[in-house]
Amino acid sequence: MSNFGLSRLRVVNPYEESFREARSAVGASAVLQAAERFETLAAAVGDCSLVVGTTAGQNRELKQPLLPLAAAAQKMRGALGGGRVAILFGSEKRGLSNEDFTHCHWLVNIPTREQHPSMNLGQAVAICLYELVREEHVAETAEVAQPAAAGDLEQLTTTMFDLLLASGYVKPRTEASSLEKLRRLFRRVDFKAVDAELLLGMLRKIDWKLKSKKS
Amino acid sequence: MSNFGLSRLRVVNPYEESFREARSAVGASAVLQAAERFETLAAAVGDCSLVVGTTAGQNRELKQPLLPLAAAAQKMRGALGGGRVAILFGSEKRGLSNEDFTHCHWLVNIPTREQHPSMNLGQAVAICLYELVREEHVAETAEVAQPAAAGDLEQLTTTMFDLLLASGYVKPRTEASSLEKLRRLFRRVDFKAVDAELLLGMLRKIDWKLKSKKS
Repeated sequence: MSNFGLSRLRVVNPYEESFREARSAVGASAVLQAAERFETLAAAVGDCSLVVGTTAGQNRELKQPLLPLAAAAQKMRGALGGGRVAILFGSEKRGLSNEDFTHCHWLVNIPTREQHPSMNLGQAVAICLYELVREEHVAETAEVAQPAAAGDLEQLTTTMFDLLLASGYVKPRTEASSLEKLRRLFRRVDFKAVDAELLLGMLRKIDWKLKSKKS
Repeated sequence: MSNFGLSRLRVVNPYEESFREARSAVGASAVLQAAERFETLAAAVGDCSLVVGTTAGQNRELKQPLLPLAAAAQKMRGALGGGRVAILFGSEKRGLSNEDFTHCHWLVNIPTREQHPSMNLGQAVAICLYELVREEHVAETAEVAQPAAAGDLEQLTTTMFDLLLASGYVKPRTEASSLEKLRRLFRRVDFKAVDAELLLGMLRKIDWKLKSKKS
């Protein structure tokens, strides 16, 4: 990160002792010392308007669009004009989970030989960040409207989910997968901040009405 | 190396014991098992027609031409038609020596932040090899999802409008302008056909519930 000028490292639910030791070690980098800790992925990306997950992209059925790194980096650079962009990496052993993926707008993978797609974590991070700053001139975007922050999208998701539960659209047994489907839906759609806010206001009003009818 | 389809690793004057252990370890990669050992750098690159040295490129006076990685990779790919190409990496601690450089036709460096040019060896190797095979993948693009038809968007609009009327979000006097606002909202958002359909199903269920409560 430091090599390529990135400074904001956010760590989700790290192993407490290792994290403390790493940060306080003599010679710990400025990036590591300034790393922020979060309890959940949702909280960690709450102020980001684009969330991109990394994956080796094989051996599982992905429900999000998957872009090769060069194209993904271009999109991410373009999105930087509109807000914070998060790029997520999973653990060395298992990578990101399908649940983690539901927080992502789309996914990126580093093109590799088919027979050996899984990479060392540190190398994968280095390659992604190299590609991100590879183009000297970061694209200045003509984008005017601010994209919705992940926190707003999550509020949309949970409010809609409440409505779907109350209306019987979501069946008790399928709650978890329905929530994930909904979360993916609201990330696929390219919401601007104002639009997400507008829609949230509508859903809240409907929710309020539905609940007041009940009692 | 294995990730990016490179198979010929040559090691110059390695620390004997570590090298033997690494190669014979359970799970050692095919690349490592097939690694060739040489006593001198001259011997290791003896059959190569282009030899490129890697360097952080700062703090010393270089006597060889220095190319940034992207340009260097292009030249190396071009040279592959004429014979073997070697890319040299020094030790983690000290990198390549000036004597090593004298064996090189030219040098390559990975563009980094000026204040932090020195990289981890494994990451530097990964980035160089990624760039070497990068071009093959640049043309790949993401899949195309069918955008929502105007008719679907209009159904979304009217269903949502019914809900907003029923919930009291839309006030009687502002019906016309509210409908227009809603119509614009659902057109601004870049809905795919499957997403519009999914959302429509949800709204209809909520609408049904709200109306059944009423009667």
